[in-house]
Amino acid sequence: MKYFAGIDLGGTFIKGGIVNEEGEILIKDKIPTGKERPYPEIAKDMADLVLDLARRANISREEIEAAGVGSPGTIDSKNGVIVYTNNIDWKKVPLAQEIRKHLGIPVFVTNDANAAALGESFAGAAKKYDSSVFITLGTGVGGGIVLNKKLFEGYRSAGAEIGHMVIRLNGEKCTCGRKGCFEAYASATALIRQTQKAMEKDPSSALWTICPKLEDVNGKTAFDGMRAGDKTAEKVVRGYITYLAEGIANLANIFRPNAVVLGGGVCAEGDNLLIPLKKKVNRLLYGGAKYAPVEIVVAQLGNDAGLVGAARFAWQNL
Amino acid sequence: MKYFAGIDLGGTFIKGGIVNEEGEILIKDKIPTGKERPYPEIAKDMADLVLDLARRANISREEIEAAGVGSPGTIDSKNGVIVYTNNIDWKKVPLAQEIRKHLGIPVFVTNDANAAALGESFAGAAKKYDSSVFITLGTGVGGGIVLNKKLFEGYRSAGAEIGHMVIRLNGEKCTCGRKGCFEAYASATALIRQTQKAMEKDPSSALWTICPKLEDVNGKTAFDGMRAGDKTAEKVVRGYITYLAEGIANLANIFRPNAVVLGGGVCAEGDNLLIPLKKKVNRLLYGGAKYAPVEIVVAQLGNDAGLVGAARFAWQNL
Repeated sequence: MKYFAGIDLGGTFIKGGIVNEEGEILIKDKIPTGKERPYPEIAKDMADLVLDLARRANISREEIEAAGVGSPGTIDSKNGVIVYTNNIDWKKVPLAQEIRKHLGIPVFVTNDANAAALGESFAGAAKKYDSSVFITLGTGVGGGIVLNKKLFEGYRSAGAEIGHMVIRLNGEKCTCGRKGCFEAYASATALIRQTQKAMEKDPSSALWTICPKLEDVNGKTAFDGMRAGDKTAEKVVRGYITYLAEGIANLANIFRPNAVVLGGGVCAEGDNLLIPLKKKVNRLLYGGAKYAPVEIVVAQLGNDAGLVGAARFAWQNL
Repeated sequence: MKYFAGIDLGGTFIKGGIVNEEGEILIKDKIPTGKERPYPEIAKDMADLVLDLARRANISREEIEAAGVGSPGTIDSKNGVIVYTNNIDWKKVPLAQEIRKHLGIPVFVTNDANAAALGESFAGAAKKYDSSVFITLGTGVGGGIVLNKKLFEGYRSAGAEIGHMVIRLNGEKCTCGRKGCFEAYASATALIRQTQKAMEKDPSSALWTICPKLEDVNGKTAFDGMRAGDKTAEKVVRGYITYLAEGIANLANIFRPNAVVLGGGVCAEGDNLLIPLKKKVNRLLYGGAKYAPVEIVVAQLGNDAGLVGAARFAWQNL
């Protein structure tokens, strides 16, 4: 059995794990990032975490073939360099090289959303599919593309920015500077804004009973309102699912993957989200859904997707 | 030197050529399709055309390694089957198998836009780029995706439908049934409609001097009007370029290719189209254009792109 180390670098925590060639996590743990420190210190902590995990799992350093890191930001994965990330204040950090100094094994770095996409493909919801598009609905809309079981990153790893595909010209302002991006309509942030707007327009909505303060609205509020029978809430949910479906259909027409994997808190809504979503997407697929169906599935690995995918990324690039 | 046969199947003509491994056409010719005939007759004509071309080029049948066909419609390229095409009234036609009967060499079939994309990558405008997105602006918006010099077709070859990516939710009706597709804004057909609408709104526009009859408007009319100093025409052109730029930026953010190759009559406008287009696209690229620039180039092979790409497709799948 081969072993790989997977690291998920976040602004608050560094999560690490030892993953075997079946995608199983043998052991995992997390340590604080301490992101204000110089990067060599953080890199050393990442290496130490891997060594510590290996020791606790009774695996020698030599048995670990390679380590992978999923990092926020723009990553030059060919050279293992963090080009830029604003979660941690880094610019042109040669992270792979720095970790390798301490670990003595090959180290590879990719973007965190890419790592999660690969993780789900390797050992999660897209395990049985050759090609999958991973879409995570959070503060923004992140994603990753897996084609023939391998990560597709684009030139200098700058591709797969699926949240920054305009679906409504001159629409909602996006953080990227464009107007009308998929992210500005389908992120959890967008759903919250859509819910708040609807509440402001309808003071009689039951949404005000569920959530008396506008600033407390979250991605669940509109779904709760719909379940309580509120028409305004239902309209918000229907609108949100339409945005999501249109964006997914765009990606499906472009990639025609075997599956689209959805991640993010809103997926907890289960069938309330999935049944209408699948129906809408199927109607929007070019040439119909029958000839080349696209499954829509919910991510399975949760917070582990990143480290499992990072380990897989290291394996594939070895 | 290796030789391959390339065939571009159209509703009116079958174009064929013998292509060498550098992508040069040794000889080419065309024959009428006669699309109302049974498919075995058409397939036999395609084989005969290849044999005739080989004879005229003094190449023996044995020297031709394989033949490729670019065909309109939905193609199951894995099995060489035309699933469906409405240009020719075909459904589930085992074209590769039928041609092979007569030629005795391996035959491969892909979609015509895909073939053109591969042709430009092999021997045309995208020759020096690893990855390119080909966009042809005609009656519709067709396209093909080349990643690491190979065609990306998606599950059952149903991907790369880049014209059917919604850029304006609830916008112009598209032939595919959706509303607001890239095709409905950036095709030559769309540009003509945009020009006609602007003329109807502005009876004093110089466009009426350039083209007194609405039904004679073509993809050049608005550009001609702009060159004549007409404000309404200039506005049409500016609007069209914005639509095109937004769609290209979407694809660039998703694929981050080295280059986008544009085909179609409107490219004859040259710098009047390209200079503002490049400027707009660069502004819309996620993370800016500096780190991972995306070139915008005009297709070079014209009507030969399909047969050159079909030959290349055969070679790559051999």
